[in-house]
Amino acid sequence: MDFEVYNSEYMSIIFVKDKLNYTGKEIEPLWAFKTFDVQKDSIVVFRGKMEVSQEEMKDLKDIKREKDIETPIKSEDAINFIVEHFDSIDLKTIYLRQRLLVFIAKEVIESYNIKLRREGDDLYFEDKKLSVCIACKGTVSAKIHLGINVKSKGAEHVKIVGLEDLGIKDIDEVMKSIAIKYAEEIDKIERDLRKTLPLK
Amino acid sequence: MDFEVYNSEYMSIIFVKDKLNYTGKEIEPLWAFKTFDVQKDSIVVFRGKMEVSQEEMKDLKDIKREKDIETPIKSEDAINFIVEHFDSIDLKTIYLRQRLLVFIAKEVIESYNIKLRREGDDLYFEDKKLSVCIACKGTVSAKIHLGINVKSKGAEHVKIVGLEDLGIKDIDEVMKSIAIKYAEEIDKIERDLRKTLPLK
Amino acid sequence: MDFEVYNSEYMSIIFVKDKLNYTGKEIEPLWAFKTFDVQKDSIVVFRGKMEVSQEEMKDLKDIKREKDIETPIKSEDAINFIVEHFDSIDLKTIYLRQRLLVFIAKEVIESYNIKLRREGDDLYFEDKKLSVCIACKGTVSAKIHLGINVKSKGAEHVKIVGLEDLGIKDIDEVMKSIAIKYAEEIDKIERDLRKTLPLK
Amino acid sequence: MDFEVYNSEYMSIIFVKDKLNYTGKEIEPLWAFKTFDVQKDSIVVFRGKMEVSQEEMKDLKDIKREKDIETPIKSEDAINFIVEHFDSIDLKTIYLRQRLLVFIAKEVIESYNIKLRREGDDLYFEDKKLSVCIACKGTVSAKIHLGINVKSKGAEHVKIVGLEDLGIKDIDEVMKSIAIKYAEEIDKIERDLRKTLPLK
Amino acid sequence: MDFEVYNSEYMSIIFVKDKLNYTGKEIEPLWAFKTFDVQKDSIVVFRGKMEVSQEEMKDLKDIKREKDIETPIKSEDAINFIVEHFDSIDLKTIYLRQRLLVFIAKEVIESYNIKLRREGDDLYFEDKKLSVCIACKGTVSAKIHLGINVKSKGAEHVKIVGLEDLGIKDIDEVMKSIAIKYAEEIDKIERDLRKTLPLK
Amino acid sequence: MDFEVYNSEYMSIIFVKDKLNYTGKEIEPLWAFKTFDVQKDSIVVFRGKMEVSQEEMKDLKDIKREKDIETPIKSEDAINFIVEHFDSIDLKTIYLRQRLLVFIAKEVIESYNIKLRREGDDLYFEDKKLSVCIACKGTVSAKIHLGINVKSKGAEHVKIVGLEDLGIKDIDEVMKSIAIKYAEEIDKIERDLRKTLPLK
Repeated sequence: MDFEVYNSEYMSIIFVKDKLNYTGKEIEPLWAFKTFDVQKDSIVVFRGKMEVSQEEMKDLKDIKREKDIETPIKSEDAINFIVEHFDSIDLKTIYLRQRLLVFIAKEVIESYNIKLRREGDDLYFEDKKLSVCIACKGTVSAKIHLGINVKSKGAEHVKIVGLEDLGIKDIDEVMKSIAIKYAEEIDKIERDLRKTLPLK
Repeated sequence: MDFEVYNSEYMSIIFVKDKLNYTGKEIEPLWAFKTFDVQKDSIVVFRGKMEVSQEEMKDLKDIKREKDIETPIKSEDAINFIVEHFDSIDLKTIYLRQRLLVFIAKEVIESYNIKLRREGDDLYFEDKKLSVCIACKGTVSAKIHLGINVKSKGAEHVKIVGLEDLGIKDIDEVMKSIAIKYAEEIDKIERDLRKTLPLK
Repeated sequence: MDFEVYNSEYMSIIFVKDKLNYTGKEIEPLWAFKTFDVQKDSIVVFRGKMEVSQEEMKDLKDIKREKDIETPIKSEDAINFIVEHFDSIDLKTIYLRQRLLVFIAKEVIESYNIKLRREGDDLYFEDKKLSVCIACKGTVSAKIHLGINVKSKGAEHVKIVGLEDLGIKDIDEVMKSIAIKYAEEIDKIERDLRKTLPLK
Repeated sequence: MDFEVYNSEYMSIIFVKDKLNYTGKEIEPLWAFKTFDVQKDSIVVFRGKMEVSQEEMKDLKDIKREKDIETPIKSEDAINFIVEHFDSIDLKTIYLRQRLLVFIAKEVIESYNIKLRREGDDLYFEDKKLSVCIACKGTVSAKIHLGINVKSKGAEHVKIVGLEDLGIKDIDEVMKSIAIKYAEEIDKIERDLRKTLPLK
Repeated sequence: MDFEVYNSEYMSIIFVKDKLNYTGKEIEPLWAFKTFDVQKDSIVVFRGKMEVSQEEMKDLKDIKREKDIETPIKSEDAINFIVEHFDSIDLKTIYLRQRLLVFIAKEVIESYNIKLRREGDDLYFEDKKLSVCIACKGTVSAKIHLGINVKSKGAEHVKIVGLEDLGIKDIDEVMKSIAIKYAEEIDKIERDLRKTLPLK
Repeated sequence: MDFEVYNSEYMSIIFVKDKLNYTGKEIEPLWAFKTFDVQKDSIVVFRGKMEVSQEEMKDLKDIKREKDIETPIKSEDAINFIVEHFDSIDLKTIYLRQRLLVFIAKEVIESYNIKLRREGDDLYFEDKKLSVCIACKGTVSAKIHLGINVKSKGAEHVKIVGLEDLGIKDIDEVMKSIAIKYAEEIDKIERDLRKTLPLK
């Protein structure tokens, strides 16, 4: 697989240049180490189809709601971010970091003069869904998957919208921008907590 | 003091109706309990002068940089948010929640058709500073202070801007909106982590 | 299934009105969400047979001791409490909460002018065993199962006693009382830790 | 000072034979090490006057309610238990252990054919208060103080009752019994969590 | 199986007198409880063949590097240490304890007038590998395996050396020495952290 | 002050070139940030007198033992290492890291063909004390101080030995070596825990 690695202070950013589909297996622990040999906390970004079957889903609410749909999460063309942290692996921390990633994605996309709406970890353009997102934890690490549609094809039971529908052409730039900004924010937080006096 | 209390699932939102200045003492542990008798995690919002002296500051970087200025943080009229959490008191979590609060403040203010810029935990309009923010922890709780200028007066050594300069009139609405949205997001995260399957 | 939900500040109390057997599967993570759609920490209480096979047991000491018995935990008629917490998932905390639940159960039953004996997490009337209990943890939550015999039938290799043998008629009242008192105590502890000054 | 030390598996039990007053200073970190040279988690029990002034109190709710009373906690003759744990120092754990101690104290006293009522961490005989209790944490340890009146003298603004009023004569036995049973329960929990299979 | 148990303050030391091979299964949680009935943190030491197949390996780096070798870890005769801790189960702590064990092993072996070289968790004599080591965690406990070759036979793709090649004859003494010193160091750390004042 | 900064992956190594005395104040939180502007976990190494008075000591055991000595820790010429970690601030972790630092110091010094003896966190040459060491924690960070005598002058009530007595001439090299090796070991552990599969 063809990919580039950038290192921030506390994270590795892996930008996959080949097409790569998101199947749900990428959320499993140590996938980034197995695939890209990275031994830091990491954010991997890649583009391809997104097709997650029932068995690979982690959101039990979605699983219940969509139990008659074989492949509930589907997109013909999407950019996918896989984050893995080993420093703090409780669910609360990873869900807070998930919100951080979603807010940063929103910030990057809105820099193209688009106005999005956020509800929890979902991004919408008007009433159309732009993204899917989950955070979860295992025994040794905590992970996030954020998928943002590039095209509005693929999904069967929800109205979706893609970055291209919003007029964004340079998808690579969006991918890199979100991944780098996330890593930089994590770095900045690490520096922030090393300059703060305790409460009395 | 005249104030209203709203309860979300996991937080108390205290909206102070009287003028109240931010002096730095409000960041100390259990201030919300002492002042408003609240025994939940809480977000208190109030409006008044903001004047923090060297001794009350928690950001050692600011303290070093501004060591010759007696009252480095100063604003004639500001809205102030004091968050206190007891559930997770490590610095990393409270800094992640601080970012969440800043992103939500940005989202609320931008709903007035204003475009802000965020750098870490700071909000800017063009090159003018709109806000100050700190997160910190003590032995029993972790706290955030976010101050957003209403007027651009008071600060002496930085170019600042206030919500009124940006054309926002209903300051009370901004105060309530940010506080309520923060509490709702915290609630949603608590619900989210109670529906998520573990990694294999 | 027919059930009622009561919400305390930090917990959902689910009182199942239909008969429901305890098989050991109820201890698995997110069972309460899957079955009752509850997204809070929860205590579920139900009445039915209790039959736990070797594979579903969590107490390795019991498994070793009773390795020749196919269904070591057995009761014709029992009330069962399933507690799930997501806030603190280490084994020490869940075992402390298990003791709390056992003590509260004892307190409720003793209010019927019965004197019980407690040894660790077991309740006895004279030399007869009234209850079984286990605490355990998974990747995302920690759980407790407490089963209290209603009738003294079912068990094959230990002398047991049931609530009805002790003269208690309103079993529903006992079920509700224990569940509600447990939730209230958890709530009170949460309030307590939000009023306590740190040690110097 | 004259005292005896017993060691359970995980705790030291220090039984002070001389009179010793509780002044609030005993709650401070490492008091047991300073006074008795003990380097394990510990429960110290002693008998004497109990007089805690405003400055030494940790319960901010009591401090607010009794702000005009110089010495809000007062008893002419009481038995006092000071617990210190270093293994888990968060407030939630120490408050759960506090409940454990209170339940054990109740169990021991009720073994004298007395029926007590418990509300949170308080013990009552009829409508008279038998005990005071606080849990708190510092930077390196978490502590509990439980005081149980022996005589009903000393308190000025609450109706209290003492163990002697309840007909208990061998106060030493009550002291030792509660301390030993607490240590044994802590030991048992440590053994319990080393025999439990994880959730799947 | 024939074995002896020694108890230090916080640990059980199990010295297996029969030959026992290391197959990788010994690293699984609660193996010491299942095999030796021990309900404390423990260090088990035994001597035998060491043969770990791909499926039983925990070090993903080794798995990748040696993916064409069926049994990558192999030694005809080795002494094996299995440590299990339940008190702190995060990966960082168990890796720090792993280093402690390796340093202690080095110290004991060097007391035979041998000079070893340490690289991370590996011990070398000149350029020959003396040991293999892994730390890992599960849901309820954290574990270490340290294997030290006695003979230099068995390994196929690395140059190894054994204790007997270094002139050490009393292998039992080395086994006991390392296990006891590790337990004593863990005990000493527990005592140390119960005598230390907090930072201001 | 004249100093050099080297950065490893997770740590800053600060090598102070001017003479600097250790007074006990250097152990306080954020001293490295205040003095050297470093916002990473850090190890600072410097050479000078070591004079710690009673008030600045953290080891309560030493304080008790040496209560009549005004300046119990004293050395005319010593090298001092100050470590500060923000990632894990519990006492157990910092004491494990303290042992790591002591073992690394021993390893470096023994590379000069000297044989030392270690007891807990103390290094000895024959029966003479070479070093002093303490680990402690505050609200936001955990710290270690390791002092190694260069000369055997200064101490009044213990027999000490210095690196120069052992024939070591290039003290700077020892200082740098220990600091760098510690930082590298911390880095390696961080990488190790990002390659390890969980227990089943």
